[in-house]
Parts: sequence; C-alpha cells; structure tokens
Amino acid sequence: MSGDGTFLTDFATLSGFGATERGGVHREAASEADEAQWIWFGRWLADRGFTVRHDRVGNQFGLLERTPGARYLLVGSHLDSQPRGGRWDGAYGVLAAAHAVHRLGRETHALNLAVVNWFNEEGSRFTPSMFGSAVFTGGLDLAEALDTRDAAGVRVGDRLAAMGRTGTDAPALADVAAYAEIHVEQGRVLENAGTTIGLVEATWAARKYGLRVVGEQSHTGSTVMADRRDALLGAARLVVLARELSDELSAPEAPLHTSVSRMVVEPNSPVTVAREVSMNLDLRSPDEALLAHADAVLHERVPEIERSARVGVEIAGSHGWGVQPFSPAGVQLAREVADELGLSHRRIMTVAGHDSVNLNGHVPTVMLFVPSVDGISHNEGEHTTDADACAGLDLLTGVLRRLAAGGIAGS
Amino acid sequence: MSGDGTFLTDFATLSGFGATERGGVHREAASEADEAQWIWFGRWLADRGFTVRHDRVGNQFGLLERTPGARYLLVGSHLDSQPRGGRWDGAYGVLAAAHAVHRLGRETHALNLAVVNWFNEEGSRFTPSMFGSAVFTGGLDLAEALDTRDAAGVRVGDRLAAMGRTGTDAPALADVAAYAEIHVEQGRVLENAGTTIGLVEATWAARKYGLRVVGEQSHTGSTVMADRRDALLGAARLVVLARELSDELSAPEAPLHTSVSRMVVEPNSPVTVAREVSMNLDLRSPDEALLAHADAVLHERVPEIERSARVGVEIAGSHGWGVQPFSPAGVQLAREVADELGLSHRRIMTVAGHDSVNLNGHVPTVMLFVPSVDGISHNEGEHTTDADACAGLDLLTGVLRRLAAGGIAGS
Repeated sequence: MSGDGTFLTDFATLSGFGATERGGVHREAASEADEAQWIWFGRWLADRGFTVRHDRVGNQFGLLERTPGARYLLVGSHLDSQPRGGRWDGAYGVLAAAHAVHRLGRETHALNLAVVNWFNEEGSRFTPSMFGSAVFTGGLDLAEALDTRDAAGVRVGDRLAAMGRTGTDAPALADVAAYAEIHVEQGRVLENAGTTIGLVEATWAARKYGLRVVGEQSHTGSTVMADRRDALLGAARLVVLARELSDELSAPEAPLHTSVSRMVVEPNSPVTVAREVSMNLDLRSPDEALLAHADAVLHERVPEIERSARVGVEIAGSHGWGVQPFSPAGVQLAREVADELGLSHRRIMTVAGHDSVNLNGHVPTVMLFVPSVDGISHNEGEHTTDADACAGLDLLTGVLRRLAAGGIAGS
Repeated sequence: MSGDGTFLTDFATLSGFGATERGGVHREAASEADEAQWIWFGRWLADRGFTVRHDRVGNQFGLLERTPGARYLLVGSHLDSQPRGGRWDGAYGVLAAAHAVHRLGRETHALNLAVVNWFNEEGSRFTPSMFGSAVFTGGLDLAEALDTRDAAGVRVGDRLAAMGRTGTDAPALADVAAYAEIHVEQGRVLENAGTTIGLVEATWAARKYGLRVVGEQSHTGSTVMADRRDALLGAARLVVLARELSDELSAPEAPLHTSVSRMVVEPNSPVTVAREVSMNLDLRSPDEALLAHADAVLHERVPEIERSARVGVEIAGSHGWGVQPFSPAGVQLAREVADELGLSHRRIMTVAGHDSVNLNGHVPTVMLFVPSVDGISHNEGEHTTDADACAGLDLLTGVLRRLAAGGIAGS
C-alpha cells in the first residue's frame, strides 16, 4: 500500500487551506481557513460512507459502525495550526487516520471505527492547548471551554454555533475502547538515528506556569529610575531566568527545556512604564526529579527579581504532569507491525503535548511518530518526506487492524 | 485672582471625561471619552466668544482676534491621556490656557490670543507622541499622520473625519508669534525643593530606538534548546541591557534614564517560540556626552545578545534630539512675573517631551511647571494641589499678558 497517491493528493488539497507563501499554513482554531477545511473534511468523510457527528465543543467525528453496539476504536489528531505553522502538525494525523480507517472499512472488526478531528489542539487563539480532547476526557469543563474568548473577544461557544459545528449525538469517552494517533515528531531524534518510526513510550514531564508581574505605571522619561516599578523589566528577568535554568540544570541524559513565548504588556505605551505583564513559563524534562529541582530553583530566584525590579510576581495557574507512559502493550503491538512492514523503528518519548496525552490514562492509547526534517515544527518550514508519510500511513493501518480486533482494548 | 473657583469647577468637570475608579482618566486620542471632552471644550470656548477652528490633523483652536491682521500668541497643551493616566497631564495646561486667555480677553494686545488643544500628544494609541504639534510644525508629514493606524486598524484620518474634527481655516505656524504652555512637572524636583513654579530652561537630550528582534518560530517543547532562535529571549536581554546602562553610566549630576515600555510579540502563542519582537528603547540624559556614550555602549553590547540568543537585532527608526534650550528671554520674563506674584520658583529642565518641544525652535516658547505630588505621572494617582494649580494659572495669565504685548515675540 506504500506510495498511496490518493493520500498524497488529499494531503496537498488539505495543505491549501490557509496556505502561506512560505509553504506553511495559518489556520487557527475556528478561523475561516479552519472552517473551510472542516467543511471539506466532513464532505470527504460523508462521501466515503462515514457518519459525521459533532460534540458540544466542536470535535468532529467520522463513524463507521459495522458492529452494532460495539465500542469504538478512535483515531485522529487535529486540523488547526499555529499562526504561520507547518502543514504536517496534526493534519497529517487526521488525514492518515481517515485513509487508514477507509482502507479497513470493508472489513468487519470486534470494534467499530471512528476518525476524529479534535477542536483547537494548538491553543494559540483560545487557550489552553489540547482543548477539544480535554473537554472530551473531562479535564476541561465544557461551560468554561465555551466561555473562552480570543484576544478580540470572540467566544468559543458563539463561534462554534455560528459555524454549525456542534452536536449532541457524538460518541462519548465511555463509547471509546482504545485510541491511536500518528504525528510528526517535531524533533530530531528519528532523523538523527535514521529511523522511520517512533514508538512513543511516554510523555516528558512538564510544569506550566501562568505568571503575572505587577508593577506601577509611571512616565518613562521623567520618573527617576529609583522610583520605577517596571513590570516589563521584571518580566524580562523572568525570561532570562527561564533560559538560565536550562543552561545550568540540563544534563545530556536529562535535558531541561524551558520557554517563555507569550507576553501581554499593559498599557504597552511608548512613554509609560508597564504596570503589568502576563506571561507563560514552561519547564519540561524527561526526568521528574530534575523538573522538581528546576521548579524549586525557579521559586528560589523569583524574590530577587521582585526586589531588583520592585515588582510583584504572582505564580498563578501552575499545572503540570509527570512522565506518563503510553500502553506498553500498544508499543509492543506497533513494534510488531513495523517489523512486519520492514520499517525501522525505535522507542521515543514525546516532549510536545498531543491529544493522545489527554486520552492516555482513560483508554489504552497508541502514539506513533514519523520523522520531521531538521526537527523543524511550529514553523512554515516544517516538513516530512512523502516516503515517511506513506510509511506512517501503512503502519497506522496495520496497527488499527490489530487494535480493532481487540488487541489491547482490554489491557 | 488666586483660588479661582470657576477654574477648579471646570477642571473637575473635565476630569469626569473618561474618569477611572481610582481617580485617573482613560481617554486616549480620538476615543469616545476624548471625543466627548473635545465637544465639551469646543462649547466652552464658543460660549465665551472664542472662534473655534480645526486644522487637518485635528488640532483644536480657540481664537480671540482683537487686533485684525496681528499674529497669534498661542497657548495650550493636550486633553488626551495615557491608558489609565492622570487627570493633570495636558488637561491642566489646556484649561489653564483657556481660563488665562479668557481673563485677558477684554484687553487689547499687540498680538491676538489663541488657545490650542493639540491632537494625540500621548502617542499610546497612535504613535508617535506629540503627534498633532509635530504635524503643525512640519516634523511629521500630514499624509503619513492621517494614514497612521492603531492596533485595531483604525486610521487617524478616518476617525477624525467621522468625528468631524478637521478643518482648513485654522492658524498655521506662520501665523504664530510665540507659544506658551504650562504643565505638571511629572517629577519630584519642585516638590523636593518646596518650590511652586518651574521655569523650564531646556529639554533633556534623548535617543529613541525602534528595535526589531528577529528569531525563528519553533516548538516550545520539542525543539532542542541549542536549535532555538528565540526572539523573546533576545528582547528580554535588551530590556535588561537598557536598565544596566542606567545603573552603570548614571552619575548624580548626569543621570541616564532608560526604558523599554512597549513590546509586540509574534506569534505570542503559548507553545511557539517567538519569531519576532518589536519594541522601543529610550535613552535620556541632560548630558549630551553621556547620552552619546550610552548609545555607543548599547551598540557595542547588542552583538553579544544576537549571538547568545541566536537572533538578529535591527535598530530601526532611531531618532533623537540634543539638549534644547527654551527662550532665555522667556525664562526671564516668567521669573519676573513669578516674583511679582510672590511665587517661589527655580530653573528646571524637562525630561518628558511636550508639545512645547515641537514649537520651540520655530517660535519663542515659554514652558512652565507646577509641582506633581510624589512625582507620580502616567498613573491614576497623579496629583497637583489646588493651590499650586491656581498659582500656575495666575502665573500663566501674567506671562501671557507680557507676551501678548510683544514681550519676547521678536527675540
């Protein structure tokens, strides 16, 4: 089945929605580009005999019920992208899921098959990320999700209603027996090792903080320096601190990834010292002890920033997770399929979050990677070769066949 | 004339436009609150016999032509404010100008009298600051000014047209013989010295940079740290550098004020390393040699930030000015009036920019300060006492009387 021309043609079509000049896509959740591809994908599913359903948070399902009353093997990812993001992130997984299930659709299995396009995995327009799958698995309250607004004040619930992208007759978590997802790696591990398939065995641990730096407005010119309480200075020192934590604490076998990527400055005027900055700060590591240490060092050093910039730093909205293993039986099953197909493979951890992370822990979950060229992601230059994309589709098809037969559903 | 109840009552009325809960005002240029006060002030002028005129960039003039054909003594400031700004900044000077000219209106002078409310002095909504007076004096191109847009995309020209706040029959620079402005100090010098009146003899020198930090989008989780080109990290190091320049280079008699107060992060997503940050960076000092040194040190240290954060830093849009003296004859004239009124006074420099800075150099210009309590400005807590406000009004009235007689018009 390798070299599936139909799959590559469909992927090229999909990559046209929100296409950017530099080869990427710009289609944040519920944007016009996301709406157009959602309509296209719904038609694609319906044309091939899938029953299209939505839940109340805009998750789009394509159901193939061949075994009345049986639970579903659910497989998918997300079609939304970061601003000026890559074509592959999420979209590859949704389309591979649809093609794989379509290939299997003529067969009868112990489980029914369902494809899903999760709403707003990226979280750039409406936070948090992995939004739709979080509501589906109960980690995010539905009412709170629908009341979330973007920077322009657009409410999720209003926008979904305007699109007609909600329903009440979709499968619920209790109807799902197992979940699978394939995704581009977004890192260099597979490429560096010359390996085609990543068998994801666990998620890195992470702590994510919402920080609020509180200073006081004053005049950027006339206020003497000693009188200033500059929230932006405090925020800048926190950005530098985040990088220092990685530089100081990372070890070759236990890296610490740190980032600040979002900052809202008030009043953001050219002549007024900032009164307040809201920002994120993330720490991630495959080593839980290192992450706990980094968290402690962060808390130790914040008071010095508060003192030197004369600001208050509120650490609000901290959340995180430990190293989360995916189903070992699922890893073994996927490994056997890769061996049968003659595809090179290795175990790997995922640093990035995925919808599969939300499903994992609730139902047996299999997560698969294909290589990213140069590890580039959340960038218009993100790329995966046709050969790797098709190999991944073949692997996913084989994995789903085994899962649908009840492979690890009860594990 | 001290303790003018009418002035204080009018000032209380004016402070109601865009009033905030914490005693400040929030009325950025051409906002609804600014529109309401502009209408109110136009009526105030018309009711007292002023002829109200506008120019093409929305500067509002109130003319009292008693001597046909004579040039104008122009006096004013601005009614717009910073977001959550103070009641006094600008508004005090406009209302004091109007009351002072109204007091003098029954007399005949060599010069005609005109009050002005300059459009968009603050520059928080539409940059740059001192916008209307810059167009009036030729420092900012009219077409460019009208094409300026706020963050929401609203164009100055369209908004002014919708308000009906433009005209073609206002005085031009050639019609102005002299300019005067009174303003709150926005610093602590007068308060610390226990002095009522500041005779502004010069403006601090300043260099203002528009900086663009260019990195590359990537995933905040999966991208290995060494591969990142984090524009926000580069920007944060520039904020810290700005403060270091002040800490290292300031001397008691030659302070260096530095600031970064505005930052726009792209894409500002919680999971994508920033590809670009636009920001300002200002250096100000009363010592031109120190300012030049600070500029040199800034340029020396930027390459290390580019290297360590793997970003490019473009210093775009740099502009500045040297120490600019106001008319010495004007300072002397104002000093004599203060002595006659028994008001304590001292010479002072202005760190902040004012519309008077744009007029200065084109026409003889007198700039006066009254004290700011605790030096607080661009803040809802900005305050000046009633006694100082009324003393300033009396001083301005006396200064205008002398100027209107031709005091320094030819100097």
